[in-house]
Amino acid sequence: MMDVAMIEAAAARIAGRARVTPLLESDTLNDLAGRRVLVKAECLQRTGSFKFRGAWNALSCLAAGVGVLAYSSGNHAQGVALAARLQGRAAVIVMPSDAPAVKIANTRGYGADVVLYDRAKDDRDAIGAGLAAQRGLHLVKPFDDASVIAGQGTVGLEIAVQAADAGVTAGRVFTCCGGGGLTAGIAVALAARAPGLRVHPVEPEGFDDVAQSLAQGGIVTHQGQATICDAIMTPAPGALTFPIMQRHCGAGLTVTDAEVRRAMALAFTHLRIVVEPGGAVALAAALFRGGDGAVICTASGGNVDAALFGQVLQEHAI
Amino acid sequence: MMDVAMIEAAAARIAGRARVTPLLESDTLNDLAGRRVLVKAECLQRTGSFKFRGAWNALSCLAAGVGVLAYSSGNHAQGVALAARLQGRAAVIVMPSDAPAVKIANTRGYGADVVLYDRAKDDRDAIGAGLAAQRGLHLVKPFDDASVIAGQGTVGLEIAVQAADAGVTAGRVFTCCGGGGLTAGIAVALAARAPGLRVHPVEPEGFDDVAQSLAQGGIVTHQGQATICDAIMTPAPGALTFPIMQRHCGAGLTVTDAEVRRAMALAFTHLRIVVEPGGAVALAAALFRGGDGAVICTASGGNVDAALFGQVLQEHAI
Repeated sequence: MMDVAMIEAAAARIAGRARVTPLLESDTLNDLAGRRVLVKAECLQRTGSFKFRGAWNALSCLAAGVGVLAYSSGNHAQGVALAARLQGRAAVIVMPSDAPAVKIANTRGYGADVVLYDRAKDDRDAIGAGLAAQRGLHLVKPFDDASVIAGQGTVGLEIAVQAADAGVTAGRVFTCCGGGGLTAGIAVALAARAPGLRVHPVEPEGFDDVAQSLAQGGIVTHQGQATICDAIMTPAPGALTFPIMQRHCGAGLTVTDAEVRRAMALAFTHLRIVVEPGGAVALAAALFRGGDGAVICTASGGNVDAALFGQVLQEHAI
Repeated sequence: MMDVAMIEAAAARIAGRARVTPLLESDTLNDLAGRRVLVKAECLQRTGSFKFRGAWNALSCLAAGVGVLAYSSGNHAQGVALAARLQGRAAVIVMPSDAPAVKIANTRGYGADVVLYDRAKDDRDAIGAGLAAQRGLHLVKPFDDASVIAGQGTVGLEIAVQAADAGVTAGRVFTCCGGGGLTAGIAVALAARAPGLRVHPVEPEGFDDVAQSLAQGGIVTHQGQATICDAIMTPAPGALTFPIMQRHCGAGLTVTDAEVRRAMALAFTHLRIVVEPGGAVALAAALFRGGDGAVICTASGGNVDAALFGQVLQEHAI
């Protein structure tokens, strides 16, 4: 159902559209962690997260002129909105009204029609189904879609090459994990192209449905507890992503919001990149969970409101 | 005296040591500027600025075991300190006590012996000369040294390739300019490898000795006025760098501190990179000085104290 050939086909489609993001490394962070920490900086991707890859690939598979609909708290929203604009498609994005302001503003900036709903009161699916039927739009799911997973898997193809260039062919890869699209895609790519690198999904403490599902051998759903990691507050892994993770991934890890904030501040000071909370869980695990050997981690996104980032800097200023 | 062969020799020396930094572009910033703005993200370089390139190249030309001395407010300091550590050399860095805290901390973190002096009271040169004589250290100048200029010029070789990949072979290149090491190096590289790209140095208003020197046809020295751009508060271009800039560069531009702060905030939101004030002058010029056609600008460094960065975010939060 999902193999490296599909990811390589996606890589050919996104070439020249998505950016090959750098694998960064800081001498100071290595000293701090006591091992090499290599950071796949997807916050530098077009739209500020890896989501543009999957969105571009999924939309490339649609007939010309077909408009798209997506539900998203923000990163999938921006990826779909920009890909649609570049492909000349209409895009309607249904977003919760409490999504980060920067994500709503950017999605509108890419020309999408943004429809806000109240998480507490409104039925998102009903709103989306109504719009899709009315305007003849194609729904682009955020993770449980083979073309989206294949697009995100291109991150894994790049990691395989870049890690080898950096002298790392064995070790662990920590991925920021919501529904598992990025994690599953990277895991398939690495199993084929860099089998010495083992993927472990990382989630916020209290929202560890993937770690629990892997531990229990079946999909566990829970609503989770409050976390600042808005991008990865997903109640369950997907029907497509879970079996892939089950087959290829090691155990899941969790980190606290406090560790996430500290990782964001360290990325600011020592990598000079802007990482959002949900994009910093893997770096937090790389820095604050012991273990030997090199670790590669995704910095999956960098769309964070200035007010929150300013607070994090204030807490952790050196 | 300085030609592209020297820069290519430097590129061979730094290969695998310095990072090939990405040329970033934001769809949103392009819309805002009304033209393509491509950002050479040297803030992602090892030590957080391009200075590591020149430092590595200069130190590679010294006999084994020779220790080094540098004067610097911070970026050259970090570049020399890390290059010295990696090459097994002693390093003594003389820094003003009011340098950004992050720069002093990182320089110490790379293992250098940091000697602080009071800008108002102490004689920096006397302190340095004393230490150099006492410990037999080699002085590594921050910009007026052929091996340093050649090292910085490797940024230009990368720009030539990356700009062509992005479809840009004609246009302007804005460089953040202090003493002119980066500007001169890039100008020599591009004159040989991408002659359609014309370099213009950018300085803070009130510290525009290079722009004035270019306009008047000879080196103008002035002490300048206060600016937040600590990295490029240089009173005059160098005896080596000025003739190169005179030969290859277009007129200098200046930007205000307010424009620099706004550019830093826009880089945070739309490029997700951390740029320090002195590293943001070229981006500010690209965004806020009119003109047609694509502009490439250096984001030369990202070593900025969290407190200042937090203030900038607060001023410009969307």
